[in-house]
Amino acid sequence: MMKRISILGSTGSIGTSTLAVAEQFPDRFSVVAIAGGNNSELLESQIRKFRPALAAIAGEQAAGELRKRCRDLPVRILSGVEGMIQVAAAENADITVSSIVGTAGLVPTMAAIQAGKDIALANKEVLVTAGELVMAECRKRNVKLFPVDSEHSAIFQCLHSGERGDVRRLILTASGGPFRNHTKKDLAKVTLAQALKHPNWNMGRKITIDSATLMNKGLEVIEAHWLFGMGPEQINVLVHPQSIVHSLVEYQDGSVVAQLGMPDMKGPIAYALSYPDRLPDVSPGLDLASIATLTFQEPDRDLFPCLGFAYDALRAGGSMPAVLSAANEVAVKYFLEEKIGFMDIPRVLSAAMDAHTPVSFKSVDEALKADLWARHEAEKIITTVKRKA
Amino acid sequence: MMKRISILGSTGSIGTSTLAVAEQFPDRFSVVAIAGGNNSELLESQIRKFRPALAAIAGEQAAGELRKRCRDLPVRILSGVEGMIQVAAAENADITVSSIVGTAGLVPTMAAIQAGKDIALANKEVLVTAGELVMAECRKRNVKLFPVDSEHSAIFQCLHSGERGDVRRLILTASGGPFRNHTKKDLAKVTLAQALKHPNWNMGRKITIDSATLMNKGLEVIEAHWLFGMGPEQINVLVHPQSIVHSLVEYQDGSVVAQLGMPDMKGPIAYALSYPDRLPDVSPGLDLASIATLTFQEPDRDLFPCLGFAYDALRAGGSMPAVLSAANEVAVKYFLEEKIGFMDIPRVLSAAMDAHTPVSFKSVDEALKADLWARHEAEKIITTVKRKA
Repeated sequence: MMKRISILGSTGSIGTSTLAVAEQFPDRFSVVAIAGGNNSELLESQIRKFRPALAAIAGEQAAGELRKRCRDLPVRILSGVEGMIQVAAAENADITVSSIVGTAGLVPTMAAIQAGKDIALANKEVLVTAGELVMAECRKRNVKLFPVDSEHSAIFQCLHSGERGDVRRLILTASGGPFRNHTKKDLAKVTLAQALKHPNWNMGRKITIDSATLMNKGLEVIEAHWLFGMGPEQINVLVHPQSIVHSLVEYQDGSVVAQLGMPDMKGPIAYALSYPDRLPDVSPGLDLASIATLTFQEPDRDLFPCLGFAYDALRAGGSMPAVLSAANEVAVKYFLEEKIGFMDIPRVLSAAMDAHTPVSFKSVDEALKADLWARHEAEKIITTVKRKA
Repeated sequence: MMKRISILGSTGSIGTSTLAVAEQFPDRFSVVAIAGGNNSELLESQIRKFRPALAAIAGEQAAGELRKRCRDLPVRILSGVEGMIQVAAAENADITVSSIVGTAGLVPTMAAIQAGKDIALANKEVLVTAGELVMAECRKRNVKLFPVDSEHSAIFQCLHSGERGDVRRLILTASGGPFRNHTKKDLAKVTLAQALKHPNWNMGRKITIDSATLMNKGLEVIEAHWLFGMGPEQINVLVHPQSIVHSLVEYQDGSVVAQLGMPDMKGPIAYALSYPDRLPDVSPGLDLASIATLTFQEPDRDLFPCLGFAYDALRAGGSMPAVLSAANEVAVKYFLEEKIGFMDIPRVLSAAMDAHTPVSFKSVDEALKADLWARHEAEKIITTVKRKA
């Protein structure tokens, strides 16, 4: 049974890994639509290799260039948000891989759900920003949402060992990032280059910074809440520097089920695409005897306040997680441009949350408005911080 | 829904833990029949507390004593193998806990299966000695066999995360016993007292010695073969001294699912009795951050040849595992009586296997005959070894 895949964000880290899985299993998967950022050269080579009938690129100028490059191919090339929506809801797709980074992924992912496509979800902001709306739409359309994050994929796998009502808590593991054993003083002086050196995973720049602040884990806590219907008090975080145990589920009888593997995104991607089947030789094998030692410690919430902010936002509810996530996108952008320091990131988030009174969303538009408000607020805060500095 | 339990071996380590679970959940379980060894005082107190309608004790004299002690109670008291069979197949029991140590458990367990009782299996020899016959009978009677060993219970829990055909291998963890880091020279000099000091589990004497030689793990490999239908090349052993990861399943996509918990038999027992439900607060909670470090290493097959013997026996098939297990019971008995040394145990097993040509069993009687042959052979070998020494 061939599964037809549409990919939002085909030129990114998850997108290229998804295509690698599709290439490894040509009898199982066909790629029917792809949407990428503005790298028309890479998109062209992906179109030549996988022959989707539909492709989209962000800018209209890039779309024109791509159309020229692909003149000899039977592919329709669109652009902008409308193009992404068309790819997301591509008529003949069975499942849509949502791997555009940031809030930009929200509208096309919602379009895919409304078109009844199952979703392989790699974008964090879809659930963090509009979890309640997205989950309601999934229920309404009978759409299955498969997590692609290694942590949520692990939880999803471990949840098969028991009934949902027998789960005591979910335990998300965190590498702890490159600054796990720093002091507060050390942390104030870290550079962009240091923050971009993730010990275990090779990921995009934004998510790598989020790993260093533990904001990434905080956003995953919010995602886990929506994906698995657990309250904040039932979701714990455990630092595990080797990133071998991808997450754990503790049942009420005291039994803990964990999923382990080498750090490699192809595993969770393939599992989301082929569930309940498991495809052969997707990830490198795990040799625990040669790894020899796995360690665990509590996260240092003093050192990494972003993790606590996520719990605060989840408890506050409504628009608060959207505000946290949007403010974080802005703060990380400024940090990546070396315009603010590492410890300014939590300062910006805290100030943005303080300035916000949470409301309930009735539509994606409202979620996007809160997102926009938080971005402006974060910019304002950063300008103030810099003026003071 | 009250589940009615019959317990073979109620006065042993697993039996008393089973009764502790029944006591913790009086609304879920009632104990309708128990059989113990010769401790009539303990049996009496169990009968007074749990009020089974039927009880059995090994010796006829002990049965007489027990009848006197329980004169005021509405309990039928039997003795001998016939008594055990009656308890095993107790008319109103839903599930029979098979926890008599050694080959003595085989006949009553088979009687329970033939009476259509589900089995919570803690006895290793039932499957090691007569796995093919037992599994065929389970299929024929549509009987469910729930493993109670912590390792097999772990595998059973982990197998829920995928289809059986997608399993690449089972990984049984072993504490490595008290002599894990010994040299061959050290090992030749170990005393009974040292061998009886298991680092993590508080178990019966025989199984504690089997842990020290890794024979216990070898027997578990053979059990896993029958329980889960995997060949010897698909069953691996990994030394994990902390006994926190109870076992793991590796799927063909490279994903590894593990079950963890504090070393406590109540967890696996309750899971076998209440499957698929999980009962609250059965085992102490697991705090990985305070455990901090888990380590893994390959077993030293040179130092612990008994593990290799189990694979050899499984590959030889037929009666060979029965011979290995029976010879081991005799060798361990002599070691427990301090009549042979620790390194004599593998010598006896190796010689017994060398002297045996495997045959297929058509009945439990034939299995018991092979068992008896191996016991005599082992005694003979021990006499020879001692004469030489």
